[in-house]
Amino acid sequence: MLTRTEIQQRVSRLQERLTLNGVQAALLLVPIDIYYFTGTRQNSALWVPSSGEPMLLVRKSLVRARAEGLIDDIRPFPSSKELASLLGSEGDKVGMTFDAVPVAQHGWYSKVLPGRSFADVTMLVRELRSVKSPAEIEMLRHSAEKLCSIFSEVPTFLMAGMRELDLAAEMEYRLRRIGHEGYVRMRAFNQELFGGMAVSGSATKYGFFDGAVTGQGLSGASPQGASLDEIRENEPVLVDFAGVFNGYIVDMTRMFVIGTLDAELQRAFDLSLEIQEAVRRAMTPGAICEEIYRQAAAMAENAGLGGNFMGMPGEQSRFVGHGVGLELDELPVLAQGFNMPLQAGQVVAVEPKFVIPGKGAIGIENTFVVTETGGERLTELSDEIVVI
Amino acid sequence: MLTRTEIQQRVSRLQERLTLNGVQAALLLVPIDIYYFTGTRQNSALWVPSSGEPMLLVRKSLVRARAEGLIDDIRPFPSSKELASLLGSEGDKVGMTFDAVPVAQHGWYSKVLPGRSFADVTMLVRELRSVKSPAEIEMLRHSAEKLCSIFSEVPTFLMAGMRELDLAAEMEYRLRRIGHEGYVRMRAFNQELFGGMAVSGSATKYGFFDGAVTGQGLSGASPQGASLDEIRENEPVLVDFAGVFNGYIVDMTRMFVIGTLDAELQRAFDLSLEIQEAVRRAMTPGAICEEIYRQAAAMAENAGLGGNFMGMPGEQSRFVGHGVGLELDELPVLAQGFNMPLQAGQVVAVEPKFVIPGKGAIGIENTFVVTETGGERLTELSDEIVVI
Repeated sequence: MLTRTEIQQRVSRLQERLTLNGVQAALLLVPIDIYYFTGTRQNSALWVPSSGEPMLLVRKSLVRARAEGLIDDIRPFPSSKELASLLGSEGDKVGMTFDAVPVAQHGWYSKVLPGRSFADVTMLVRELRSVKSPAEIEMLRHSAEKLCSIFSEVPTFLMAGMRELDLAAEMEYRLRRIGHEGYVRMRAFNQELFGGMAVSGSATKYGFFDGAVTGQGLSGASPQGASLDEIRENEPVLVDFAGVFNGYIVDMTRMFVIGTLDAELQRAFDLSLEIQEAVRRAMTPGAICEEIYRQAAAMAENAGLGGNFMGMPGEQSRFVGHGVGLELDELPVLAQGFNMPLQAGQVVAVEPKFVIPGKGAIGIENTFVVTETGGERLTELSDEIVVI
Repeated sequence: MLTRTEIQQRVSRLQERLTLNGVQAALLLVPIDIYYFTGTRQNSALWVPSSGEPMLLVRKSLVRARAEGLIDDIRPFPSSKELASLLGSEGDKVGMTFDAVPVAQHGWYSKVLPGRSFADVTMLVRELRSVKSPAEIEMLRHSAEKLCSIFSEVPTFLMAGMRELDLAAEMEYRLRRIGHEGYVRMRAFNQELFGGMAVSGSATKYGFFDGAVTGQGLSGASPQGASLDEIRENEPVLVDFAGVFNGYIVDMTRMFVIGTLDAELQRAFDLSLEIQEAVRRAMTPGAICEEIYRQAAAMAENAGLGGNFMGMPGEQSRFVGHGVGLELDELPVLAQGFNMPLQAGQVVAVEPKFVIPGKGAIGIENTFVVTETGGERLTELSDEIVVI
């Protein structure tokens, strides 16, 4: 349960960082950021001065924001004129998350708050949110248990002849009935996700999704995830789903096969387990994200599968793990170009995968917490390929 | 089917408007805008000069963009230096949709395209997209048929004692199996939606969602839609779902009751049908959106239900219909403050609804095309309350 004390700690940590960066206040507009610092996700704007009490200005629903919000100052969204007197003063530097706030919002606030300069606090907010409290890790563990319980049911409904879409629908239905909230939040501009990926067979599938496996989807307008292709015997069936419970997202992938699996795919799968274990061992505080990715990529390279690691040859992603929490694409990212050190309490979905043209996609994914002794697994379910 | 000819017409219409507005080119970054003008929704940027050929710059997947894109010039996303020589020249005014493009994207393009000024073309693009072609109306009709087919199954699974969540899961599952693409695109900053709303009973439910009925949801992080509340006899059950097929969204609501309905709710429902019919008749080219809303609100007011129209007293929405298409919240909006005239071929979900504290939410919703003879209904299914 989210408590007032935890909210106060989160706000204090933000205020310390604002002070360190010479920013007088943060004006947070992204709903899930607001939820993180207040306990309520209503249509609102959150003002966090570098010292003093935060203030939540609510467009809708004020009643609900007051009922569940865990800060004291929750009020109706004021007129533009009142805003200028409420939110800091001329000369202030005000932080905003430029990664997700639209130009029009920024423009409007620039107009109604004259004399303030706006600074990007995206990385500050995302980095702060990336380190999970014990209460958050419990929420994630709960999400992981629920997600694992549905993955363990797959053998009861996976059959040759069903379409990828049918498999996805079964996963979604079962997850939903146990409380999956449905909407999988992604932060990155351009990304969208529905449920997860249920991808089978040897056909080559290309898509925009920033992951190893994208799926074909049902049309050019929604070109990802399950397709109408039939699931056949002796082909790899990759099921990669996110579970969202109480806002907290975990991510996992398991492999299934009806019959027997091609030897090259089995070898790639075995390698994905080895890479996962190497990454898990490396997930200690202070380890550099990029170096973990490089180690993983080198293992793929040394096994002769470098060109198949994390995607189709020519369309490979340059990462092996991504932070999860209230969003599917949180920090840290175990990726090329991410030089930041890991911190205890960060939570990362590690997903070494291979795509072998003409044979299919294969790999593993589990969600781990960074600890002093390496990654602690949240998604407790056997990694082995399930043979139906 | 989307054809090359239709894409050319869309691009030409955009180019005419850019020319009229003295804008040298549009740089479109929102995925569904890019889909509309190219036929492919990949991670990319679309450059449309006010005359000449559009150019799609693709980050991922280039293979897929080339396979399904219906414009000629589709190329890999170039280096920052090449961008400046590819995309117009210094002094150009470049259009961007400020409503949805993040500050960081705008900042990056401002840097790599020096000397260009950027102008907001949000309304220009949204207004253009709001008028549907005959082919688009066929797509919407197809989505409507599919959505209606699932609504007509509700009596086979709606039972007293099931939770709102179970009802939502049944709807989602059945829709998904017939090809619902899942992800319901909304454009407005701050809005999110999963599937739809299955809301029952008399409990007062508040939420951020910009509609008459919000639902309680499953947690403060996802505070909308179905809750764990049990559906009981003699209470109104409101089912409001969007159907997304081939990218095209229609929206509808039907009422159900297990047993008998309270007389005041029945009266409000009858009034919602009267308002729907008045709005439908008014939906001719040239009619002013705001006036249609005012007429609807006046009908509610005259019947003594003004304080219950389109939401909880104190949290009422000021609209009675919203455009649908590739997004759930397209133009036009039949709302206060929208002075634009309707155009033939616009498609609007009309949803007069009432919330009566202590009794529940009730109303109707159908999707109509604006025609010379008034709204032509796409969602062909009886409006009557279904008694189980």
